[in-house]
Amino acid sequence: MIRTETTIRVRYGETDAMGFAHHANYLSWFELARIEMLDELTLSYKELEKDGYFLPVLGASLSYKQPAYFDDRLTVVCYVREKPGLRIHINYEVLRNETLLCTGSTEHAFISKDGQPVRPPKHVIQTFLDAMENE
Amino acid sequence: MIRTETTIRVRYGETDAMGFAHHANYLSWFELARIEMLDELTLSYKELEKDGYFLPVLGASLSYKQPAYFDDRLTVVCYVREKPGLRIHINYEVLRNETLLCTGSTEHAFISKDGQPVRPPKHVIQTFLDAMENE
Amino acid sequence: MIRTETTIRVRYGETDAMGFAHHANYLSWFELARIEMLDELTLSYKELEKDGYFLPVLGASLSYKQPAYFDDRLTVVCYVREKPGLRIHINYEVLRNETLLCTGSTEHAFISKDGQPVRPPKHVIQTFLDAMENE
Amino acid sequence: MIRTETTIRVRYGETDAMGFAHHANYLSWFELARIEMLDELTLSYKELEKDGYFLPVLGASLSYKQPAYFDDRLTVVCYVREKPGLRIHINYEVLRNETLLCTGSTEHAFISKDGQPVRPPKHVIQTFLDAMENE
Repeated sequence: MIRTETTIRVRYGETDAMGFAHHANYLSWFELARIEMLDELTLSYKELEKDGYFLPVLGASLSYKQPAYFDDRLTVVCYVREKPGLRIHINYEVLRNETLLCTGSTEHAFISKDGQPVRPPKHVIQTFLDAMENE
Repeated sequence: MIRTETTIRVRYGETDAMGFAHHANYLSWFELARIEMLDELTLSYKELEKDGYFLPVLGASLSYKQPAYFDDRLTVVCYVREKPGLRIHINYEVLRNETLLCTGSTEHAFISKDGQPVRPPKHVIQTFLDAMENE
Repeated sequence: MIRTETTIRVRYGETDAMGFAHHANYLSWFELARIEMLDELTLSYKELEKDGYFLPVLGASLSYKQPAYFDDRLTVVCYVREKPGLRIHINYEVLRNETLLCTGSTEHAFISKDGQPVRPPKHVIQTFLDAMENE
Repeated sequence: MIRTETTIRVRYGETDAMGFAHHANYLSWFELARIEMLDELTLSYKELEKDGYFLPVLGASLSYKQPAYFDDRLTVVCYVREKPGLRIHINYEVLRNETLLCTGSTEHAFISKDGQPVRPPKHVIQTFLDAMENE
Protein backbone atom coordinates (compact mmCIF):
# COMPACT_ATOMS: atom_id res chain seq x y z
CA MET A 1 0.00 0.00 0.00
CA ILE A 2 1.11 3.53 -0.75
CA ARG A 3 0.07 6.21 1.72
CA THR A 4 0.99 9.89 1.45
CA GLU A 5 -0.22 13.05 3.17
CA THR A 6 -0.80 16.55 1.88
CA THR A 7 -1.85 19.54 3.94
CA ILE A 8 -4.05 22.30 2.63
CA ARG A 9 -5.61 25.40 4.14
CA VAL A 10 -9.17 26.22 3.14
CA ARG A 11 -9.23 29.38 1.02
CA TYR A 12 -11.90 32.03 1.45
CA GLY A 13 -12.94 31.64 -2.17
CA GLU A 14 -13.53 27.93 -1.51
CA THR A 15 -16.29 28.63 1.03
CA ASP A 16 -19.95 29.03 0.16
CA ALA A 17 -22.96 30.83 1.62
CA MET A 18 -23.56 27.97 4.08
CA GLY A 19 -20.19 28.93 5.55
CA PHE A 20 -18.77 25.55 4.51
CA ALA A 21 -16.05 24.71 2.03
CA HIS A 22 -18.08 24.08 -1.12
CA HIS A 23 -18.30 20.36 -1.87
CA ALA A 24 -16.83 20.62 -5.39
CA ASN A 25 -13.47 21.73 -3.96
CA TYR A 26 -12.80 18.30 -2.51
CA LEU A 27 -12.21 16.98 -6.04
CA SER A 28 -9.58 19.68 -6.50
CA TRP A 29 -8.02 18.80 -3.15
CA PHE A 30 -7.93 15.13 -4.15
CA GLU A 31 -6.16 16.20 -7.35
CA LEU A 32 -3.64 18.24 -5.40
CA ALA A 33 -2.98 15.33 -3.04
CA ARG A 34 -2.66 12.94 -6.00
CA ILE A 35 -0.03 15.13 -7.64
CA GLU A 36 1.90 15.38 -4.38
CA MET A 37 1.70 11.58 -4.03
CA LEU A 38 3.27 11.28 -7.50
CA ASP A 39 5.94 13.76 -6.37
CA GLU A 40 6.76 11.58 -3.38
CA LEU A 41 7.11 8.60 -5.71
CA THR A 42 9.55 10.79 -7.74
CA LEU A 43 7.02 10.92 -10.58
CA SER A 44 6.20 14.39 -11.85
CA TYR A 45 2.76 14.69 -13.38
CA LYS A 46 4.01 17.70 -15.31
CA GLU A 47 6.79 15.58 -16.84
CA LEU A 48 4.29 12.84 -17.67
CA GLU A 49 2.24 15.33 -19.67
CA LYS A 50 5.41 16.56 -21.41
CA ASP A 51 6.06 12.93 -22.36
CA GLY A 52 2.58 12.77 -23.89
CA TYR A 53 0.80 10.91 -21.10
CA PHE A 54 -2.37 12.34 -19.55
CA LEU A 55 -4.16 10.87 -16.56
CA PRO A 56 -7.77 12.06 -16.62
CA VAL A 57 -10.33 11.11 -13.99
CA LEU A 58 -12.67 8.35 -15.17
CA GLY A 59 -14.74 8.21 -12.02
CA ALA A 60 -14.95 9.67 -8.55
CA SER A 61 -16.97 9.21 -5.41
CA LEU A 62 -17.15 11.32 -2.28
CA SER A 63 -18.77 10.86 1.11
CA TYR A 64 -19.03 14.07 3.12
CA LYS A 65 -19.18 13.49 6.89
CA GLN A 66 -18.46 16.86 8.47
CA PRO A 67 -18.08 20.31 6.91
CA ALA A 68 -14.75 22.09 6.55
CA TYR A 69 -14.56 25.82 7.21
CA PHE A 70 -12.52 28.78 6.02
CA ASP A 71 -8.94 28.68 7.28
CA ASP A 72 -9.12 25.04 8.40
CA ARG A 73 -5.85 23.22 8.03
CA LEU A 74 -6.78 19.90 6.48
CA THR A 75 -4.81 16.75 5.84
CA VAL A 76 -5.59 14.89 2.65
CA VAL A 77 -4.39 11.30 2.83
CA CYS A 78 -3.94 9.38 -0.43
CA TYR A 79 -3.96 5.60 -0.55
CA VAL A 80 -3.11 3.22 -3.37
CA ARG A 81 -4.12 -0.26 -2.29
CA GLU A 82 -4.37 -2.10 -5.63
CA LYS A 83 -1.52 -2.64 -8.05
CA PRO A 84 -2.04 -0.25 -10.95
CA GLY A 85 -2.70 -1.78 -14.34
CA LEU A 86 -4.63 -0.15 -17.13
CA ARG A 87 -6.56 1.60 -14.39
CA ILE A 88 -5.29 3.26 -11.24
CA HIS A 89 -7.48 3.46 -8.14
CA ILE A 90 -6.77 5.99 -5.43
CA ASN A 91 -8.56 6.47 -2.12
CA TYR A 92 -8.65 9.65 -0.08
CA GLU A 93 -9.40 10.81 3.43
CA VAL A 94 -9.75 14.46 4.39
CA LEU A 95 -9.17 15.17 8.08
CA ARG A 96 -9.12 18.20 10.37
CA ASN A 97 -6.84 17.02 13.15
CA GLU A 98 -8.34 13.66 14.13
CA THR A 99 -11.79 14.38 12.68
CA LEU A 100 -12.60 12.63 9.43
CA LEU A 101 -14.44 15.10 7.17
CA CYS A 102 -14.63 13.24 3.89
CA THR A 103 -13.65 9.99 2.23
CA GLY A 104 -13.46 9.45 -1.49
CA SER A 105 -11.92 7.66 -4.41
CA THR A 106 -10.92 8.34 -7.99
CA GLU A 107 -10.19 6.07 -10.90
CA HIS A 108 -7.79 6.95 -13.71
CA ALA A 109 -6.40 5.65 -16.99
CA PHE A 110 -3.64 6.98 -19.18
CA ILE A 111 -4.52 8.59 -22.47
CA SER A 112 -2.33 10.06 -25.20
CA LYS A 113 -2.39 13.67 -26.34
CA ASP A 114 -5.05 12.82 -28.93
CA GLY A 115 -7.27 11.29 -26.27
CA GLN A 116 -6.67 7.62 -27.06
CA PRO A 117 -6.31 5.14 -24.16
CA VAL A 118 -2.69 3.98 -23.87
CA ARG A 119 -0.78 1.56 -21.67
CA PRO A 120 0.78 3.35 -18.71
CA PRO A 121 4.50 4.07 -19.10
CA LYS A 122 6.49 1.11 -17.74
CA HIS A 123 8.57 3.20 -15.36
CA VAL A 124 5.40 4.58 -13.79
CA ILE A 125 3.99 1.13 -13.08
CA GLN A 126 7.36 -0.05 -11.81
CA THR A 127 7.63 2.93 -9.48
CA PHE A 128 4.19 2.19 -8.05
CA LEU A 129 5.00 -1.52 -7.61
CA ASP A 130 8.32 -0.74 -5.93
CA ALA A 131 6.65 1.70 -3.57
CA MET A 132 3.94 -0.84 -2.72
CA GLU A 133 6.49 -3.52 -1.91
CA ASN A 134 8.50 -1.23 0.30
CA GLU A 135 5.58 -0.42 2.55
CA MET B 1 -40.08 9.71 -11.40
CA ILE B 2 -39.15 13.35 -11.72
CA ARG B 3 -37.07 14.31 -14.75
CA THR B 4 -35.93 17.84 -15.58
CA GLU B 5 -33.42 19.31 -18.00
CA THR B 6 -31.00 22.20 -17.68
CA THR B 7 -28.73 23.52 -20.39
CA ILE B 8 -25.31 24.98 -19.72
CA ARG B 9 -22.52 26.27 -21.89
CA VAL B 10 -18.97 25.38 -20.90
CA ARG B 11 -17.13 28.50 -19.72
CA TYR B 12 -13.51 29.15 -20.65
CA GLY B 13 -12.55 29.28 -16.98
CA GLU B 14 -14.00 25.79 -16.56
CA THR B 15 -11.49 24.24 -18.97
CA ASP B 16 -8.10 22.91 -17.96
CA ALA B 17 -4.72 22.43 -19.61
CA MET B 18 -5.87 19.10 -21.15
CA GLY B 19 -8.37 21.22 -23.08
CA PHE B 20 -11.25 19.49 -21.26
CA ALA B 21 -13.81 20.90 -18.89
CA HIS B 22 -12.16 20.19 -15.53
CA HIS B 23 -13.83 17.27 -13.76
CA ALA B 24 -14.67 19.22 -10.59
CA ASN B 25 -17.07 21.46 -12.52
CA TYR B 26 -19.53 18.62 -13.02
CA LEU B 27 -20.43 18.82 -9.33
CA SER B 28 -21.25 22.52 -9.82
CA TRP B 29 -23.30 21.67 -12.92
CA PHE B 30 -25.19 19.01 -10.96
CA GLU B 31 -25.90 21.68 -8.33
CA LEU B 32 -27.14 24.10 -10.95
CA ALA B 33 -29.41 21.44 -12.47
CA ARG B 34 -30.67 20.48 -8.98
CA ILE B 35 -31.64 24.07 -8.25
CA GLU B 36 -33.41 24.37 -11.59
CA MET B 37 -35.24 21.09 -10.85
CA LEU B 38 -36.47 22.61 -7.57
CA ASP B 39 -37.54 25.69 -9.56
CA GLU B 40 -39.60 23.52 -11.89
CA LEU B 41 -41.24 21.93 -8.85
CA THR B 42 -42.04 25.52 -7.70
CA LEU B 43 -39.59 25.10 -4.82
CA SER B 44 -37.01 27.85 -4.50
CA TYR B 45 -33.79 26.73 -2.83
CA LYS B 46 -33.15 30.36 -1.91
CA GLU B 47 -36.50 30.48 -0.09
CA LEU B 48 -35.73 27.20 1.65
CA GLU B 49 -32.53 28.71 3.05
CA LYS B 50 -34.45 31.82 4.14
CA ASP B 51 -36.81 29.48 5.99
CA GLY B 52 -33.80 27.97 7.75
CA TYR B 53 -33.46 24.77 5.74
CA PHE B 54 -30.16 23.87 4.12
CA LEU B 55 -29.62 20.93 1.81
CA PRO B 56 -25.92 20.05 1.81
CA VAL B 57 -24.43 17.24 -0.24
CA LEU B 58 -23.77 14.10 1.83
CA GLY B 59 -22.36 12.05 -0.99
CA ALA B 60 -21.66 12.18 -4.69
CA SER B 61 -20.44 9.89 -7.41
CA LEU B 62 -19.44 10.65 -10.99
CA SER B 63 -18.57 8.52 -13.99
CA TYR B 64 -16.84 10.42 -16.78
CA LYS B 65 -17.32 8.85 -20.21
CA GLN B 66 -16.30 11.52 -22.71
CA PRO B 67 -14.71 14.94 -22.20
CA ALA B 68 -16.60 18.21 -22.58
CA TYR B 69 -14.91 21.16 -24.26
CA PHE B 70 -15.04 24.93 -24.11
CA ASP B 71 -18.23 26.35 -25.55
CA ASP B 72 -20.04 23.01 -25.63
CA ARG B 73 -23.76 23.30 -25.01
CA LEU B 74 -24.54 20.57 -22.54
CA THR B 75 -27.81 19.21 -21.24
CA VAL B 76 -27.85 18.16 -17.59
CA VAL B 77 -30.75 15.81 -16.88
CA CYS B 78 -31.87 15.40 -13.24
CA TYR B 79 -33.80 12.35 -12.09
CA VAL B 80 -35.51 11.64 -8.79
CA ARG B 81 -36.52 7.99 -8.79
CA GLU B 82 -36.98 7.31 -5.06
CA LYS B 83 -39.51 9.03 -2.85
CA PRO B 84 -37.61 11.47 -0.68
CA GLY B 85 -37.56 10.83 3.05
CA LEU B 86 -34.86 11.90 5.44
CA ARG B 87 -32.54 11.57 2.47
CA ILE B 88 -33.01 12.73 -1.10
CA HIS B 89 -31.29 10.90 -3.95
CA ILE B 90 -30.79 12.56 -7.30
CA ASN B 91 -29.30 11.12 -10.46
CA TYR B 92 -27.73 13.09 -13.29
CA GLU B 93 -26.77 12.69 -16.92
CA VAL B 94 -24.65 15.20 -18.82
CA LEU B 95 -25.07 15.07 -22.59
CA ARG B 96 -23.74 16.91 -25.64
CA ASN B 97 -26.50 16.37 -28.17
CA GLU B 98 -27.02 12.60 -28.06
CA THR B 99 -23.60 11.80 -26.59
CA LEU B 100 -23.58 10.86 -22.92
CA LEU B 101 -20.55 12.52 -21.30
CA CYS B 102 -21.08 11.83 -17.61
CA THR B 103 -23.48 10.15 -15.21
CA GLY B 104 -23.63 10.82 -11.52
CA SER B 105 -25.63 10.97 -8.34
CA THR B 106 -25.84 13.02 -5.18
CA GLU B 107 -27.42 12.35 -1.80
CA HIS B 108 -28.79 15.08 0.45
CA ALA B 109 -30.38 15.65 3.83
CA PHE B 110 -31.86 18.78 5.33
CA ILE B 111 -30.03 20.54 8.13
CA SER B 112 -30.93 23.60 10.16
CA LYS B 113 -28.90 26.81 10.25
CA ASP B 114 -26.87 25.46 13.18
CA GLY B 115 -25.97 22.34 11.23
CA GLN B 116 -28.32 19.88 12.95
CA PRO B 117 -30.15 17.28 10.83
CA VAL B 118 -33.84 18.11 10.59
CA ARG B 119 -36.89 16.53 8.98
CA PRO B 120 -37.54 17.97 5.54
CA PRO B 121 -40.30 20.61 5.41
CA LYS B 122 -43.63 18.87 4.79
CA HIS B 123 -44.51 20.96 1.76
CA VAL B 124 -41.22 20.01 0.12
CA ILE B 125 -41.86 16.29 0.51
CA GLN B 126 -45.44 16.73 -0.64
CA THR B 127 -44.31 18.64 -3.72
CA PHE B 128 -41.89 15.86 -4.62
CA LEU B 129 -44.53 13.18 -4.07
CA ASP B 130 -47.08 15.05 -6.16
CA ALA B 131 -44.59 15.49 -8.97
CA MET B 132 -43.65 11.81 -8.88
CA GLU B 133 -47.28 10.73 -9.13
CA ASN B 134 -47.96 13.01 -12.04
CA GLU B 135 -45.21 11.53 -14.18
CA MET C 1 -19.85 51.94 -29.69
CA ILE C 2 -20.70 48.26 -29.33
CA ARG C 3 -23.02 47.34 -26.47
CA THR C 4 -24.25 43.83 -25.71
CA GLU C 5 -25.99 42.21 -22.76
CA THR C 6 -25.61 38.82 -21.14
CA THR C 7 -27.67 37.44 -18.28
CA ILE C 8 -26.30 35.13 -15.65
CA ARG C 9 -27.68 33.58 -12.50
CA VAL C 10 -25.40 33.43 -9.48
CA ARG C 11 -24.46 29.80 -8.74
CA TYR C 12 -24.31 28.47 -5.20
CA GLY C 13 -20.68 27.51 -5.68
CA GLU C 14 -19.92 31.12 -6.59
CA THR C 15 -20.94 32.40 -3.14
CA ASP C 16 -18.59 32.70 -0.20
CA ALA C 17 -18.90 32.63 3.58
CA MET C 18 -19.87 36.32 3.63
CA GLY C 19 -22.96 35.23 1.71
CA PHE C 20 -21.82 37.26 -1.31
CA ALA C 21 -20.82 36.14 -4.76
CA HIS C 22 -17.04 35.86 -4.37
CA HIS C 23 -15.28 38.77 -6.06
CA ALA C 24 -13.09 36.59 -8.32
CA ASN C 25 -16.18 35.34 -10.18
CA TYR C 26 -16.77 38.73 -11.78
CA LEU C 27 -13.73 38.14 -13.99
CA SER C 28 -15.32 34.90 -15.16
CA TRP C 29 -18.62 36.69 -15.76
CA PHE C 30 -16.81 39.36 -17.77
CA GLU C 31 -15.27 36.56 -19.83
CA LEU C 32 -18.65 34.96 -20.39
CA ALA C 33 -20.14 38.31 -21.47
CA ARG C 34 -17.14 38.96 -23.75
CA ILE C 35 -17.62 35.63 -25.52
CA GLU C 36 -21.34 36.32 -25.96
CA MET C 37 -20.48 39.77 -27.35
CA LEU C 38 -18.23 38.08 -29.92
CA ASP C 39 -21.14 35.71 -30.70
CA GLU C 40 -23.41 38.66 -31.36
CA LEU C 41 -20.80 40.07 -33.71
CA THR C 42 -20.86 36.65 -35.46
CA LEU C 43 -17.34 35.99 -34.22
CA SER C 44 -16.86 32.69 -32.42
CA TYR C 45 -14.01 32.71 -29.92
CA LYS C 46 -13.83 28.92 -30.27
CA GLU C 47 -13.29 29.31 -34.01
CA LEU C 48 -10.66 31.98 -33.42
CA GLU C 49 -8.70 29.54 -31.24
CA LYS C 50 -9.07 26.85 -33.92
CA ASP C 51 -7.57 29.35 -36.39
CA GLY C 52 -4.62 29.78 -34.04
CA TYR C 53 -5.60 33.08 -32.45
CA PHE C 54 -5.78 33.42 -28.67
CA LEU C 55 -7.01 36.48 -26.85
CA PRO C 56 -5.60 36.45 -23.32
CA VAL C 57 -6.32 39.13 -20.74
CA LEU C 58 -3.48 41.63 -20.38
CA GLY C 59 -5.10 43.71 -17.70
CA ALA C 60 -8.29 44.02 -15.73
CA SER C 61 -9.85 46.37 -13.21
CA LEU C 62 -12.96 46.00 -11.11
CA SER C 63 -14.91 48.32 -8.87
CA TYR C 64 -17.37 46.55 -6.58
CA LYS C 65 -20.28 48.73 -5.48
CA GLN C 66 -22.89 46.35 -4.07
CA PRO C 67 -22.71 42.61 -3.38
CA ALA C 68 -24.46 40.00 -5.51
CA TYR C 69 -26.15 37.05 -3.81
CA PHE C 70 -26.95 33.44 -4.61
CA ASP C 71 -29.65 33.09 -7.25
CA ASP C 72 -29.50 36.73 -8.33
CA ARG C 73 -30.24 37.22 -11.99
CA LEU C 74 -27.57 39.63 -13.17
CA THR C 75 -27.10 41.50 -16.40
CA VAL C 76 -23.54 41.90 -17.61
CA VAL C 77 -23.27 44.72 -20.14
CA CYS C 78 -20.22 44.80 -22.43
CA TYR C 79 -19.05 47.98 -24.12
CA VAL C 80 -16.43 48.55 -26.78
CA ARG C 81 -15.89 52.28 -27.12
CA GLU C 82 -12.46 52.43 -28.79
CA LYS C 83 -11.66 51.04 -32.22
CA PRO C 84 -9.64 47.88 -31.68
CA GLY C 85 -6.07 47.86 -32.91
CA LEU C 86 -3.26 45.78 -31.50
CA ARG C 87 -5.13 46.05 -28.22
CA ILE C 88 -8.83 45.64 -27.53
CA HIS C 89 -10.44 47.45 -24.59
CA ILE C 90 -13.75 46.27 -23.18
CA ASN C 91 -15.81 47.82 -20.40
CA TYR C 92 -18.37 46.03 -18.25
CA GLU C 93 -21.27 46.77 -15.97
CA VAL C 94 -22.92 44.19 -13.76
CA LEU C 95 -26.48 45.03 -12.72
CA ARG C 96 -29.26 43.44 -10.70
CA ASN C 97 -32.34 45.03 -12.20
CA GLU C 98 -31.52 48.75 -12.08
CA THR C 99 -28.87 48.45 -9.37
CA LEU C 100 -25.28 48.75 -10.54
CA LEU C 101 -23.21 46.17 -8.64
CA CYS C 102 -19.85 46.36 -10.37
CA THR C 103 -18.02 48.14 -13.16
CA GLY C 104 -14.85 46.93 -14.78
CA SER C 105 -12.64 46.74 -17.80
CA THR C 106 -10.31 44.32 -19.52
CA GLU C 107 -7.57 44.77 -22.08
CA HIS C 108 -6.61 42.11 -24.62
CA ALA C 109 -4.17 41.40 -27.42
CA PHE C 110 -4.01 38.52 -29.84
CA ILE C 111 -1.29 35.93 -29.49
CA SER C 112 -0.45 32.88 -31.56
CA LYS C 113 -0.47 29.31 -30.29
CA ASP C 114 3.19 29.61 -29.30
CA GLY C 115 2.45 32.71 -27.24
CA GLN C 116 3.83 35.34 -29.61
CA PRO C 117 1.92 38.63 -30.06
CA VAL C 118 0.31 38.75 -33.49
CA ARG C 119 -1.77 41.25 -35.43
CA PRO C 120 -5.48 40.61 -34.99
CA PRO C 121 -7.12 38.77 -37.91
CA LYS C 122 -8.37 41.35 -40.43
CA HIS C 123 -11.94 40.04 -40.46
CA VAL C 124 -12.12 40.43 -36.70
CA ILE C 125 -11.08 44.08 -36.81
CA GLN C 126 -13.42 44.71 -39.74
CA THR C 127 -16.33 43.12 -37.89
CA PHE C 128 -15.68 45.35 -34.87
CA LEU C 129 -15.40 48.46 -37.05
CA ASP C 130 -18.60 47.62 -38.93
CA ALA C 131 -20.46 47.06 -35.69
CA MET C 132 -19.19 50.34 -34.26
CA GLU C 133 -20.33 52.28 -37.31
CA ASN C 134 -23.75 50.75 -37.23
CA GLU C 135 -24.46 51.89 -33.70
CA MET D 1 5.96 49.70 4.39
CA ILE D 2 4.77 46.18 5.12
CA ARG D 3 6.04 43.45 2.81
CA THR D 4 5.23 39.77 3.13
CA GLU D 5 5.65 36.75 0.87
CA THR D 6 3.44 33.75 0.23
CA THR D 7 4.26 30.79 -1.97
CA ILE D 8 1.70 28.90 -3.97
CA ARG D 9 1.82 26.06 -6.47
CA VAL D 10 -0.43 26.31 -9.49
CA ARG D 11 -3.15 23.65 -9.28
CA TYR D 12 -4.26 21.67 -12.32
CA GLY D 13 -7.82 22.90 -11.87
CA GLU D 14 -6.51 26.46 -12.06
CA THR D 15 -5.25 26.03 -15.62
CA ASP D 16 -7.33 26.69 -18.72
CA ALA D 17 -7.40 25.44 -22.30
CA MET D 18 -4.66 27.92 -23.30
CA GLY D 19 -2.45 25.95 -20.91
CA PHE D 20 -2.14 29.02 -18.67
CA ALA D 21 -3.31 29.58 -15.13
CA HIS D 22 -6.71 31.20 -15.73
CA HIS D 23 -6.57 34.92 -15.03
CA ALA D 24 -9.37 34.91 -12.43
CA ASN D 25 -7.25 32.82 -10.08
CA TYR D 26 -4.88 35.69 -9.43
CA LEU D 27 -7.61 37.39 -7.38
CA SER D 28 -7.82 34.25 -5.24
CA TRP D 29 -4.04 34.17 -4.90
CA PHE D 30 -4.04 37.82 -3.84
CA GLU D 31 -6.65 36.90 -1.22
CA LEU D 32 -4.54 34.02 0.02
CA ALA D 33 -1.47 36.26 0.25
CA ARG D 34 -3.50 38.96 2.03
CA ILE D 35 -4.67 36.49 4.66
CA GLU D 36 -1.13 35.26 5.19
CA MET D 37 0.04 38.87 5.52
CA LEU D 38 -2.55 39.37 8.26
CA ASP D 39 -1.23 36.16 9.90
CA GLU D 40 2.28 37.56 9.90
CA LEU D 41 0.97 40.71 11.57
CA THR D 42 -0.61 38.36 14.19
CA LEU D 43 -4.06 39.32 12.90
CA SER D 44 -6.32 36.39 12.04
CA TYR D 45 -8.91 37.20 9.41
CA LYS D 46 -11.00 34.32 10.76
CA GLU D 47 -10.99 35.95 14.21
CA LEU D 48 -11.90 39.30 12.69
CA GLU D 49 -14.99 37.74 11.14
CA LYS D 50 -15.86 36.10 14.47
CA ASP D 51 -15.64 39.57 16.03
CA GLY D 52 -18.13 40.79 13.42
CA TYR D 53 -15.71 42.55 11.07
CA PHE D 54 -15.66 41.70 7.38
CA LEU D 55 -13.15 43.03 4.88
CA PRO D 56 -14.65 42.77 1.40
CA VAL D 57 -12.87 43.85 -1.76
CA LEU D 58 -14.04 47.26 -3.02
CA GLY D 59 -11.81 47.39 -6.03
CA ALA D 60 -9.06 45.44 -7.75
CA SER D 61 -6.72 45.87 -10.67
CA LEU D 62 -4.42 43.38 -12.35
CA SER D 63 -1.73 43.64 -14.99
CA TYR D 64 -0.73 40.31 -16.51
CA LYS D 65 2.80 40.27 -17.93
CA GLN D 66 3.66 36.60 -18.41
CA PRO D 67 1.54 33.47 -18.06
CA ALA D 68 1.86 31.03 -15.18
CA TYR D 69 1.65 27.29 -15.86
CA PHE D 70 0.52 24.17 -14.04
CA ASP D 71 2.84 23.21 -11.21
CA ASP D 72 4.68 26.54 -11.19
CA ARG D 73 5.85 27.56 -7.75
CA LEU D 74 4.91 31.22 -7.48
CA THR D 75 5.73 33.86 -4.93
CA VAL D 76 2.99 36.35 -4.17
CA VAL D 77 4.41 39.48 -2.53
CA CYS D 78 2.02 41.75 -0.60
CA TYR D 79 2.82 45.39 0.05
CA VAL D 80 1.07 47.93 2.26
CA ARG D 81 2.56 51.33 1.51
CA GLU D 82 -0.12 53.69 2.81
CA LYS D 83 -1.27 53.92 6.41
CA PRO D 84 -4.68 52.24 6.60
CA GLY D 85 -7.63 54.43 7.50
CA LEU D 86 -11.19 53.80 6.49
CA ARG D 87 -9.73 52.13 3.44
CA ILE D 88 -6.84 49.71 3.17
CA HIS D 89 -4.76 49.53 -0.01
CA ILE D 90 -2.66 46.50 -0.79
CA ASN D 91 -0.32 45.92 -3.71
CA TYR D 92 0.76 42.57 -5.09
CA GLU D 93 3.44 41.06 -7.24
CA VAL D 94 3.34 37.49 -8.53
CA LEU D 95 6.73 36.06 -9.47
CA ARG D 96 8.12 32.77 -10.77
CA ASN D 97 11.69 32.88 -9.52
CA GLU D 98 12.90 36.29 -10.72
CA THR D 99 10.27 36.68 -13.44
CA LEU D 100 7.46 39.10 -12.68
CA LEU D 101 4.21 37.53 -13.96
CA CYS D 102 1.58 39.91 -12.61
CA THR D 103 1.16 43.06 -10.56
CA GLY D 104 -2.04 44.16 -8.94
CA SER D 105 -3.80 45.96 -6.15
CA THR D 106 -6.90 45.66 -4.03
CA GLU D 107 -8.78 48.15 -1.91
CA HIS D 108 -10.79 47.19 1.17
CA ALA D 109 -13.02 48.65 3.85
CA PHE D 110 -14.45 47.06 6.98
CA ILE D 111 -18.13 46.28 7.11
CA SER D 112 -20.27 44.81 9.87
CA LYS D 113 -22.19 41.54 9.65
CA ASP D 114 -25.23 43.43 8.29
CA GLY D 115 -23.15 45.00 5.53
CA GLN D 116 -22.78 48.49 6.97
CA PRO D 117 -19.43 50.28 6.67
CA VAL D 118 -17.72 50.48 10.06
CA ARG D 119 -14.51 51.98 11.39
CA PRO D 120 -11.73 49.40 11.44
CA PRO D 121 -11.04 47.87 14.87
CA LYS D 122 -8.44 50.00 16.68
CA HIS D 123 -6.08 47.11 17.36
CA VAL D 124 -6.01 46.30 13.65
CA ILE D 125 -5.00 49.82 12.68
CA GLN D 126 -2.45 49.94 15.50
CA THR D 127 -0.95 46.63 14.39
CA PHE D 128 -0.58 47.93 10.84
CA LEU D 129 0.96 51.20 12.04
CA ASP D 130 3.41 49.39 14.33
CA ALA D 131 4.45 47.07 11.52
CA MET D 132 4.95 50.01 9.16
CA GLU D 133 7.17 51.84 11.64
CA ASN D 134 9.32 48.81 12.26
CA GLU D 135 10.22 48.42 8.63
